[in-house]
Amino acid sequence: MFFIIGLGLSDERDVTLRGLEAIKSSTRVYLEAYTSILMVQKERLEAFYEKTIILADRDMVETQSDEILFNADKEDVSLLVVGDPFGATTHTDIILRARALGIPTRVIHNASIMNAVGACGLQLYNFGQAVSLVFFTETWKPDSFYDRIKENADLGMHTIVLLDIKVKEQSEENLARGRKIYEPPRYMSIPLAVSQLIEVEQSRLSGTLSPDTTLAIALSRVGGGNGHQRIVAGTLTELSQQPTEVFGDPLHTLVIVGKRLHHLEVDYAQEFAVDKHNWRKVAKEVYGCALDN
Amino acid sequence: MFFIIGLGLSDERDVTLRGLEAIKSSTRVYLEAYTSILMVQKERLEAFYEKTIILADRDMVETQSDEILFNADKEDVSLLVVGDPFGATTHTDIILRARALGIPTRVIHNASIMNAVGACGLQLYNFGQAVSLVFFTETWKPDSFYDRIKENADLGMHTIVLLDIKVKEQSEENLARGRKIYEPPRYMSIPLAVSQLIEVEQSRLSGTLSPDTTLAIALSRVGGGNGHQRIVAGTLTELSQQPTEVFGDPLHTLVIVGKRLHHLEVDYAQEFAVDKHNWRKVAKEVYGCALDN
Repeated sequence: MFFIIGLGLSDERDVTLRGLEAIKSSTRVYLEAYTSILMVQKERLEAFYEKTIILADRDMVETQSDEILFNADKEDVSLLVVGDPFGATTHTDIILRARALGIPTRVIHNASIMNAVGACGLQLYNFGQAVSLVFFTETWKPDSFYDRIKENADLGMHTIVLLDIKVKEQSEENLARGRKIYEPPRYMSIPLAVSQLIEVEQSRLSGTLSPDTTLAIALSRVGGGNGHQRIVAGTLTELSQQPTEVFGDPLHTLVIVGKRLHHLEVDYAQEFAVDKHNWRKVAKEVYGCALDN
Repeated sequence: MFFIIGLGLSDERDVTLRGLEAIKSSTRVYLEAYTSILMVQKERLEAFYEKTIILADRDMVETQSDEILFNADKEDVSLLVVGDPFGATTHTDIILRARALGIPTRVIHNASIMNAVGACGLQLYNFGQAVSLVFFTETWKPDSFYDRIKENADLGMHTIVLLDIKVKEQSEENLARGRKIYEPPRYMSIPLAVSQLIEVEQSRLSGTLSPDTTLAIALSRVGGGNGHQRIVAGTLTELSQQPTEVFGDPLHTLVIVGKRLHHLEVDYAQEFAVDKHNWRKVAKEVYGCALDN
């Protein structure tokens, strides 16, 4: 059996009992580690699960999946995935490949940022489509995400913005020279994400995002315990002015608040607001929320 | 500490290790059992977790939450929730109440239908807002969900339709007479859901849903193992014509496929199609998917 097992969001104890059983029964255990990260290292997972873990990079999962799937019709093989197996496109590819090879597959679900984002207090059913924001370079600033945020915003829906992570990337020079030297991993931070959003708004000028009157909520290390998880709410300007330490280590996720904002959502997220008074003021005056004060 | 613990979707082994630890440490353990259900009974959870479980109905969670929260600043108390704690509004209420009482709270996330729906092969980031479909009666057919599906459809996005469940409901007569006699639980099935959708389309006539050319995917018991989970794809007409056994026991969830459908989504879900040929034909000719055949 080929298992694809969601590990959840935080550390080695977020696996489900069903997932742990599958890991224990497996002769080979792979960890996909390029679309997301846990808050702990591979070695800690290995010690806890009492299994050697093979790191699977993008190449291995996307183009050399037969290596992972080898013999999985006769023995148990597990691919561990941070969050839930259906968070990223690549895992449907490997399941399709397993199907073509006649290998039975079982998916073991877990929390992912796509549902745990509810921790910020906004209701999941008020979210529109999700968008991804990549690191801009001098010459490459893909901004189609802006159209998606606008579509959601026009309907009053919230948008989850998934922030880029760069793992095992080569510099242009090393790529050109065919040198397998990799850059240190990079994770987009909230202040950078907000500045990129504002940069695009300033070129598109549709008024979808307004630095001082668009509310947003930043989430860091969702699912982590006290002292790890952090949620910060405010206008885009307020979030961009926070020192980096406020958000702490990766991963970060940003939510753009839509106009269908409900007063209970305002109440819940107020706890996380940089400036509680301004949070309520903007919610009331700009978003039109029915608030007592 | 007050723990709200997601149990995941299927049975007692879908709890996370972190969740199980919290349950074990708790002096009282409540199970919220009116917005969703597991595939196993309370007794099986009790035996497995080695804890007595107190069933918490809507009244207790929404209006008598102080009973659940009693003493939780001094000892550990757990509220178990099917799926993830942020699937339903009511859990933000009890967290707000805990906050007001100064009780420290920890949420332990898990899979919910809101992310595990990816099992049908449609990409999560292509879903718009979620909608709920309630049981129609002769005199009460609330159809505002239709506007939400139309908003999503106009943008080409998929829609997850959460189907009504009725647990511990009183008949009008018993309610009027103040008799605490409850009806047997009811769970909306796929064929009923489809017939209600078509009924609303026939009165609204916006063309958002077309029995023969709108594709949809039915999911039953997501997260259950082989023989439990079932996924069935087809046009609305095809789904409505399936015998009830095809979908099996509750819970059922329906996805309306949006026009931004990608050919990889078609390929993946084809495995589940009632009629693979027609699935591809509609995807190609009506949805405009770039398919080879």
